[in-house]
Amino acid sequence: MGAINGSEYIDRIDQLNTEIWLDGAKVNGPLSKNAVFKGLLKTKAELYDFQMSPSMKKEMTYISPTNKEQVGLSYLQPKTKVDLRKRRIMIEHWARQTCGLLGRSPDYLNTVIMSFASSNSHLNGKENCFPEHIQSLYEMARDKDLSFTHTFITPQVNRSQAYFESSEEPISAKIIGQTNEGLLIKGARLLATQGGLTDEVLVFSTPRFSCPNEEAFAFAIPSNTKGLRFICRESFVGGDSSFNYPLSSRFEEMDSMVVFDNVLVPWNRVFFHHNAEVAADFFSVSSFHPFAYHQVIIRQIVKTEFMLSVAEAMVQTINVSEYLHIQQKISEIIIGIETMKALLDKSEYDAAEDSWGYMRPSIIPLQVASNIYPEIYPRFSEIIQLIGASGLVMLPTEKDFQSDIGPDLVRYLQGATKTAEDRVKIFRLAWDLTMSSFGTRQTQYERYFFGDPIRLASQLYKSYPKDNGRDMINKFS
Amino acid sequence: MGAINGSEYIDRIDQLNTEIWLDGAKVNGPLSKNAVFKGLLKTKAELYDFQMSPSMKKEMTYISPTNKEQVGLSYLQPKTKVDLRKRRIMIEHWARQTCGLLGRSPDYLNTVIMSFASSNSHLNGKENCFPEHIQSLYEMARDKDLSFTHTFITPQVNRSQAYFESSEEPISAKIIGQTNEGLLIKGARLLATQGGLTDEVLVFSTPRFSCPNEEAFAFAIPSNTKGLRFICRESFVGGDSSFNYPLSSRFEEMDSMVVFDNVLVPWNRVFFHHNAEVAADFFSVSSFHPFAYHQVIIRQIVKTEFMLSVAEAMVQTINVSEYLHIQQKISEIIIGIETMKALLDKSEYDAAEDSWGYMRPSIIPLQVASNIYPEIYPRFSEIIQLIGASGLVMLPTEKDFQSDIGPDLVRYLQGATKTAEDRVKIFRLAWDLTMSSFGTRQTQYERYFFGDPIRLASQLYKSYPKDNGRDMINKFS
Amino acid sequence: MGAINGSEYIDRIDQLNTEIWLDGAKVNGPLSKNAVFKGLLKTKAELYDFQMSPSMKKEMTYISPTNKEQVGLSYLQPKTKVDLRKRRIMIEHWARQTCGLLGRSPDYLNTVIMSFASSNSHLNGKENCFPEHIQSLYEMARDKDLSFTHTFITPQVNRSQAYFESSEEPISAKIIGQTNEGLLIKGARLLATQGGLTDEVLVFSTPRFSCPNEEAFAFAIPSNTKGLRFICRESFVGGDSSFNYPLSSRFEEMDSMVVFDNVLVPWNRVFFHHNAEVAADFFSVSSFHPFAYHQVIIRQIVKTEFMLSVAEAMVQTINVSEYLHIQQKISEIIIGIETMKALLDKSEYDAAEDSWGYMRPSIIPLQVASNIYPEIYPRFSEIIQLIGASGLVMLPTEKDFQSDIGPDLVRYLQGATKTAEDRVKIFRLAWDLTMSSFGTRQTQYERYFFGDPIRLASQLYKSYPKDNGRDMINKFS
Amino acid sequence: MGAINGSEYIDRIDQLNTEIWLDGAKVNGPLSKNAVFKGLLKTKAELYDFQMSPSMKKEMTYISPTNKEQVGLSYLQPKTKVDLRKRRIMIEHWARQTCGLLGRSPDYLNTVIMSFASSNSHLNGKENCFPEHIQSLYEMARDKDLSFTHTFITPQVNRSQAYFESSEEPISAKIIGQTNEGLLIKGARLLATQGGLTDEVLVFSTPRFSCPNEEAFAFAIPSNTKGLRFICRESFVGGDSSFNYPLSSRFEEMDSMVVFDNVLVPWNRVFFHHNAEVAADFFSVSSFHPFAYHQVIIRQIVKTEFMLSVAEAMVQTINVSEYLHIQQKISEIIIGIETMKALLDKSEYDAAEDSWGYMRPSIIPLQVASNIYPEIYPRFSEIIQLIGASGLVMLPTEKDFQSDIGPDLVRYLQGATKTAEDRVKIFRLAWDLTMSSFGTRQTQYERYFFGDPIRLASQLYKSYPKDNGRDMINKFS
Repeated sequence: MGAINGSEYIDRIDQLNTEIWLDGAKVNGPLSKNAVFKGLLKTKAELYDFQMSPSMKKEMTYISPTNKEQVGLSYLQPKTKVDLRKRRIMIEHWARQTCGLLGRSPDYLNTVIMSFASSNSHLNGKENCFPEHIQSLYEMARDKDLSFTHTFITPQVNRSQAYFESSEEPISAKIIGQTNEGLLIKGARLLATQGGLTDEVLVFSTPRFSCPNEEAFAFAIPSNTKGLRFICRESFVGGDSSFNYPLSSRFEEMDSMVVFDNVLVPWNRVFFHHNAEVAADFFSVSSFHPFAYHQVIIRQIVKTEFMLSVAEAMVQTINVSEYLHIQQKISEIIIGIETMKALLDKSEYDAAEDSWGYMRPSIIPLQVASNIYPEIYPRFSEIIQLIGASGLVMLPTEKDFQSDIGPDLVRYLQGATKTAEDRVKIFRLAWDLTMSSFGTRQTQYERYFFGDPIRLASQLYKSYPKDNGRDMINKFS
Repeated sequence: MGAINGSEYIDRIDQLNTEIWLDGAKVNGPLSKNAVFKGLLKTKAELYDFQMSPSMKKEMTYISPTNKEQVGLSYLQPKTKVDLRKRRIMIEHWARQTCGLLGRSPDYLNTVIMSFASSNSHLNGKENCFPEHIQSLYEMARDKDLSFTHTFITPQVNRSQAYFESSEEPISAKIIGQTNEGLLIKGARLLATQGGLTDEVLVFSTPRFSCPNEEAFAFAIPSNTKGLRFICRESFVGGDSSFNYPLSSRFEEMDSMVVFDNVLVPWNRVFFHHNAEVAADFFSVSSFHPFAYHQVIIRQIVKTEFMLSVAEAMVQTINVSEYLHIQQKISEIIIGIETMKALLDKSEYDAAEDSWGYMRPSIIPLQVASNIYPEIYPRFSEIIQLIGASGLVMLPTEKDFQSDIGPDLVRYLQGATKTAEDRVKIFRLAWDLTMSSFGTRQTQYERYFFGDPIRLASQLYKSYPKDNGRDMINKFS
Repeated sequence: MGAINGSEYIDRIDQLNTEIWLDGAKVNGPLSKNAVFKGLLKTKAELYDFQMSPSMKKEMTYISPTNKEQVGLSYLQPKTKVDLRKRRIMIEHWARQTCGLLGRSPDYLNTVIMSFASSNSHLNGKENCFPEHIQSLYEMARDKDLSFTHTFITPQVNRSQAYFESSEEPISAKIIGQTNEGLLIKGARLLATQGGLTDEVLVFSTPRFSCPNEEAFAFAIPSNTKGLRFICRESFVGGDSSFNYPLSSRFEEMDSMVVFDNVLVPWNRVFFHHNAEVAADFFSVSSFHPFAYHQVIIRQIVKTEFMLSVAEAMVQTINVSEYLHIQQKISEIIIGIETMKALLDKSEYDAAEDSWGYMRPSIIPLQVASNIYPEIYPRFSEIIQLIGASGLVMLPTEKDFQSDIGPDLVRYLQGATKTAEDRVKIFRLAWDLTMSSFGTRQTQYERYFFGDPIRLASQLYKSYPKDNGRDMINKFS
Repeated sequence: MGAINGSEYIDRIDQLNTEIWLDGAKVNGPLSKNAVFKGLLKTKAELYDFQMSPSMKKEMTYISPTNKEQVGLSYLQPKTKVDLRKRRIMIEHWARQTCGLLGRSPDYLNTVIMSFASSNSHLNGKENCFPEHIQSLYEMARDKDLSFTHTFITPQVNRSQAYFESSEEPISAKIIGQTNEGLLIKGARLLATQGGLTDEVLVFSTPRFSCPNEEAFAFAIPSNTKGLRFICRESFVGGDSSFNYPLSSRFEEMDSMVVFDNVLVPWNRVFFHHNAEVAADFFSVSSFHPFAYHQVIIRQIVKTEFMLSVAEAMVQTINVSEYLHIQQKISEIIIGIETMKALLDKSEYDAAEDSWGYMRPSIIPLQVASNIYPEIYPRFSEIIQLIGASGLVMLPTEKDFQSDIGPDLVRYLQGATKTAEDRVKIFRLAWDLTMSSFGTRQTQYERYFFGDPIRLASQLYKSYPKDNGRDMINKFS
C-alpha cells in the first residue's frame, strides 16, 4: 500500500480499539472523536496528508525497494550524504508543520525502526537473537506506513544506586515465561509518549549495568495486543478553543504508563530475549543513536526557531527592541539556534559509511547538541517569560472578546503594533508554549529527552578523543 | 466591630455584588459558591477563623486604640522592636496556613494601609493632599477588618522609553474631571490580584519620571463602586479535586484588569490628586517599602520552606538522597532560606524609629532580599522539576486510583518509602507548585513582585552607601 | 608579658632561625630583611603596633585571667554575646588594616587555639588524649602572644576515592615511633600558609573516613623544631614598589609545604595521638567551626567591602556609572556584602552557650556563608575585571611616570575624575587584587578556604533540619 | 624576496630601531637580545622558520601573482572554498606551534591587510579615498612578508555616552594638519598588541556614531616612523626559566600605548582621511570581519584544545577522572571546542563569493562564535583552576628540584601517574595559562578581542534575520 494519507491514518487508529484508560475510565468510541485525543489525531492526519500532497510527495516519499510503492522518506536507509540530506529535508518539513512541538511525529520512530534494521547484522549468530524479525518488521512498517511509540524506562520506584527490584510480582516489565507461540511478559514500563495512539509499540530496555536476563529483550507488537493496557496521565488539552489554547488544542501528545498483563509476544515479533550482553551493547553498536539524534535535533532546531519568532513577536508587540537586555536575551536564542544548526551540519558533512554500508551522521556533534539542548530549552522558555512579564498573566479569553466588555479589551489591551486581539494571540501563544501545563511538560520533555543530563556529560567525557592537543603539551615536558 | 471571622468575611463579600467579568460573562450569584472563586474564599475565610480561634487570638489581634475592640494585628502601627516582632509572628502564622502561596493574604494590604497612615504627615499642607482621609480610611479599615487589593500598573501598550500616551480617550486611568462630590476617573489599570474579591480597592500610580498631573493621585474605594469593573484573566483552578489540584483548588487568587468607566471617587476617599511631586516621592519617603517588604519577605520565607519540604519529600520518596548533585540542589534551597531569614532578622535588629515615631525595619536588607528572591524562586522551582524528572509527567488522577485499574497504579507507581497514592500526592503537589498554570503564574508573580529586577538592581546601586571601604583604598593613593 | 608590639614580634621571628627553603636555597639572615618576607612581616608588625596603640588597646586586648596582663582579644573565650561582639570588633579592626587580604592574620589561629582550649573537656578520659596540654598551650600562647600557622592537608598524590597510601616510606606525615620524650613524626603536609613565618605550627588531620591510627594526632610545636622544614612556593611579591604592586608588596603571605624529617614532638605538646575516633569527631564536637568561621567571615566581609570600593572607584574614574549593566554588576557585590553581614549578625544573635559554658555563634548561618563565599569571591573578582576591561591591560609603571615620557602618560591616561597617576593607582590596585599572581592566589585561597565546595554543600544538606515545613506538606496527605 | 625565515625576521626587526619605552627607559640594543622581548621574537622566528621548512612550505606558502615568488599563505585572496580551506590549514599550523597563545601571530594582520585589499574597490571614487594605496601596501607586505600590528581604541578617559573630547590638545589621535607630503597626526591610541615589535603599524578608527572628521582616517606606516612612540605596559615575562614560566617565557606579546608626536604620514600610505562616512561603513561593507574572524576562531579552537589537554593531564596526574563533577567540567570544554569547530566549518561550507569576486566565509556562524568565546574562555580558565585546586598554589621552582631539598619534592609532590617533576610541569603550565599575570592577561584579551560583549550581542540581534520561523507563528493569527 505504501505511504498513507490522513484519513487512512485516522481510520486505522480508530479501528484498533486499543485498551486506553483516561481519568479512571476506559476510553470508548473512536479516538478521533475523543475530546482529549482528537486534536493530536487531526494534527497527525495533516502530516500524512502533507506527505501525500502533490507538491510535497517528491520530498516526502521514496520508492520502496520491495513493493515499488511510494513510502515515507523517514524509512529511507541512507547510503549517501545526499540521502542524509533528503532525510533532513523531509524531517524538517514535518517539524515545521508542527512547530517542532510534536516530539513523536511519526518520523521519529520510523527512523528508530530504520536504524534497527540497518544494524540488525550485529545480532547475527548471537544467542536468542532474531535479526530477520527486525528486518521483516521494518519492511512491513515501511510498506504499510505504520506508526509507533516506544517504551523503555522502568518505573521510578527507587532510584538509589543500590536498589535491585526484589518483589515477587514483577514491577518492571519482565519475561515470565515462554511458549511455542512466544514470550510472556508481565509488569510495567513508566512512560510511552502517544502510548495507545499509534499502530504499534516498540519495547526494549535501556542499556544498564547488570540488566537481569529476564529484562534483556526487545520486540514490537500492535497496540491492541491482548493484555496490553495504556494508562494515560491527566490530559493537558486546555480546551477546544484554538484562540485560548493554540498549542495544546493541536499538539498535546499524551504520555501513558504501559502495563503488560501477561502479554504474549509472538516469536516473529521478538528481536532478541534473554541476552543481557546484546541488551547492553546493541544500542551503542547500532546506528540507533546517530539516526535518532539526527531526527531529534532537526526537530529541536525548528522548535527553537519557533521560540525565536514568538519572542521577537512579543518584543515587537510591546515595542521593547531598543533595550540592551532584551537584545541580549534574543541573541541568546539566536546563538542557540545557530549552534545547533552548525552541529547538525557538521554531523552531515562528517558522516561516514558504517560497517553495514549505511551513511551514518557523525555522532560527536550530535552528542554535543544533545548535551546543549536540555540546558538551552528551559532557558529560552524562561526568556520568553521574562520578555512577556505581566503580559503573560493578564490573559483574557476568546469569549471575553466576543462579550459586552469586548470594547474594553480592544482599548486597554492594544499593543504598540497590534490590535488587542492579535496581541492577546501572541501572548497566549507564548503562554501555551512556556507556562501552561502543556508548555511545562514540553520543557520537562526536552530536558530529559536524551536521558539524565549528568549521564550525558559523563558519556561525552568518556567517549571523546581527548588527545587532539597532546602534541602541544608534550612540548612542555 | 473589630476583627472578623470566616463567615462574616464570606457574607460581606457575597453581598457586595461587585461587577466581575469571567470568560465573557458577568458573574452572578454569591462568589463563595462560584466554582472559580469558592476555593480562594474558603481559604481566606479559614484565615479569618484562624485569627479568631481562642488559641490564636492573642497572637493574631490587638486592641484598637479607638474602639477598644480586638482588631487584626497586621494593622498594628509598630512603635518598638517588640511590636515589629509581633507583626512578624502574626504574618508568619497566616503564611504557614497558606504555604506562603497567597500573595495577597489580607495582611499584605492591611500593612500597606497601615504604612500610609503612619506616614500621612508627609502630606501635611501640600497642595491637593488630604492626610486626614488616609487616617480615617485606616481607622475604618482596621476597625471593620476590611480587605483590600491595589492596582498601580498601567496597561502594557508600549514599553518603549520614548512612549507617551497620546490617544484622545484615556488608556491608562486618569482624572477626567472633578465635581463637588469628588474626582471623575476613566481608563484602566493592568492588574489587580484578587481584584473584585476584596471589600475595597486602593488605587495609585507607581512613581515615575514625569508622571502627568492627571495620573498623579491616590485613593481607595469600595469594590462595588458604580462604574468600576473587574475583568478576570482565565482561571487557573484545575478542578475541584484537591487530590488532583492540591494548590490551585485552594489558593488560586485570580488577577483582573480594573476598568474605571467614569468612576466617581468621593472626596473623603481621595488621599491626594493633581500633585506629581507627591506622587513621585510619597512612596519613597513613607514607610510603604519597609513595611510592605517586611510582610512580603516573611511570606516568601515560609513559601521557600514549603518548597524545601516538597523537594525533600520527593527525594525521600524515590530515595535519591545519596547523590551529590541532589544534595547540592537541596542545599541551594537551604542557602536561599537561610539567607532570606538572616536578611529579615537584620532588618528587624537594625530597625529604627522614623520621623513620625514608628519603628521601621531597616530597608537595605529588605531591598537585598527583594533583589535575591526573583532570582532564586524560579531556580528553586526548576530544582523541584529536576528532582522529579519523568515522575512529574506520569501523573494519574484521583479517579484513576478509584477505578478498575487502581491496582495497577498501586503496584507500578509505588515509591521507595511511600504507597503509590502518597507518592502521587507528593508529585502532584510538586507539579501544581511548579508546572501547572497555577504554578507558573506563581513563578511569574514572584519574579515581578517588586517590579522589574533590572530596576531593582539599579535602585540598590543608587541608594546604597558605597563608601564604607573608602578608608581602605585611600591608603593606596 | 602579654600582648606584644611590632618590634617585639619582628625580633622574635628573626631570632627563631626556622629552616625555610625558597627557590632552591636555604633562607639565611633575618626574615624581616628578606626581600620576599619583609613586606608581610612589616604588615604584621603594624597589626601588633595597632593593638598596642593607646587609642586601640581597649578594643584590641583584655586582661589575662592568669597573669593579669593585657593580652590579645582574639584569645578571649567568650561567655556572653557581648564578648562575641567584642571579638567581632577586634577582628574587624585588624581586617580593615589589611583590607581583609591577610588570610592568616594572627587572630585566625589565636581563635582556633582558643576554640580548642574551650572544648578540651571533650578529650577527658579518652585514650591517648591530653586535654591539659591543650589548656597549657593555650595559656602560654595567649600570655606570650604567640603566632601560629596550621597544616592539615595531605599531599595531593592521588585523589581517587579508592586510594590508600601504600608506600613503605611515609608520604603523608605519620607517627613512626614514640619514646619517653615524645612522638616521632615523618612525612609531609601539603600546605601551611605563612609556614615558617610564625612562632609555632599547629598540626592535625582533617577528619576523614577511616583515618589510619598513625595519622590520628594533633599537636603544636615551635617552627624551629629540629627536623621541621618549610619549603616555600614561588614568591608572588611583584617587587618593592608599592605603586606597582600595592598589594603583593604588603600582603603576600607565602605558602609552604611542611616536611617532618623525623621530628620529635615532646609529650607536653601532644593533644592526642593514635585515636582515630577522636581525630574524626573532635572538630565537629568542639567549637572549632563556629569560632573559626566567625573570624573568617568577618574578614571576608571586610575584604568584600574593599572590593566594592575598588570597583566603584574604577566606575567613577572612567565615568561609567550610568550603564545599567555596570549598576547590576556593582549591586551583585552589594548583595554579597549585605548577605554575608546578615548571616554574620544572625550567627551572633542566635549564639548559644555550649555544654562547656562558652557562647558559640550559631553555626548554620556561618555554614551558609561558607557555602556562598567560594562562589561570590571569584565572581566579584571577575566583575572587577569586566569593569576595568582594557584599562587593566595597559598599565604603566612607577618609573614610567618619573621618566621623560611621563608627560605622555599624564595626558593620555587621565581619567574622567582623576589624574593619570591616580587613575593608574586605582587600576593597578584592581589588577593586583584580581589579575596578578598574588591576586589569583587570593581567589584560589578563598575558593578552597573551607574545603571542597561540593563537600560543603553535602555537609549542609546532611546537617540541616529539613522538616521545618513538614507541617505544611502534611496538610496535603 | 617573498616569504622570510626566522633569522631574516630577527634581523629586520633588530635593525628598525623603533622607539620603544619600557619601565621608564628607552629600549636600546637589539630587541632579540632584550630579556623582555627575546622570548616572543624567538617564537615568531620559529614560525617563519616553520613556513620555510621543506616539509611545510607547500602548505604555508603560495606563488605571488606579481613576483612569482613563494609568499605567506595568510596573504592569499581566496577565490574558492578550496582556497579558504588552504587558509585554514595554514592558520591552524601556526596556531598549533604557539598553542593558540599568540593572539597576534603574523597571519592575523596579514589577513586584515588582505581583506582590506580585497575590498578596496569600495573606496573607488569616494572623497579623500585612495584604494590604490591599499592595494600597493598589500602587495608590498605580501611580497616582503612584512609583519604588522594595528591600533584603533581611543584612550579610556571617559566612557560615558555623553562624553565628547573637548581638550585643546588632542588626546585621541587626530589629523592636525596636511602638507604636500602627507597627513600630520597628533595624539594617542590606547593599545597595540606587539606594538613596536612589528615592521609596520596599521592605524584606523573603530566605526562609531558621529566620528569627528579629523579622526576619520586609515593608514599604515613603518614602526620606526619619526615621532611614533610605543610605551609598553609592564612585562609579564615571569623569567627565563621555561620550567617555571613555560608560557610567558615564550609567548608574552606585550601591549603598548601608541603615541603620535606630530607624525607625518606620507600620502602613499594614506587609505582614506576626513571621510566620516567611509570610516563608519568600510569595516562593515568590506570583508574585514569575515576574514579576520575566520583567522581568530581557528586560533581560538586550537587554544581551547590546548586547554582541554592541560585540564585532562591534570585529571590524569591526580587521578580524579572518576568524579562526575570532574567529568562534567571537562565535557564543558569539549562542548566548547566542538561548538566552535562546527561554527567554523559552517562558515566555510556556507561561504559565498562577494561582489568583488572573493570567497567570503559566512559571517553569521563566525559572529555567533565571537559571542560565545568571551564567555567560555574565562569559564574554561576557571575549570582548570577548579581541577587543580590547592595543587595550583603549592608550586616549587626549577631550582628547588636541583637543590638539597630536591628529594623531598620528588617524594612528596609525586602524582598518581607522574613523577613530581612532571607533575609540577603540568601544574605550572596550568598556572601560567590561567593564574600568572601572563595568564590573566590572556583571559582579558579573549574577553575583549571582538570588543564589548554587550555590543556584540546587540549587533547580532540587529543583523540576524529573525523571520525564519514567521510562517510558523502566522498559522496562529
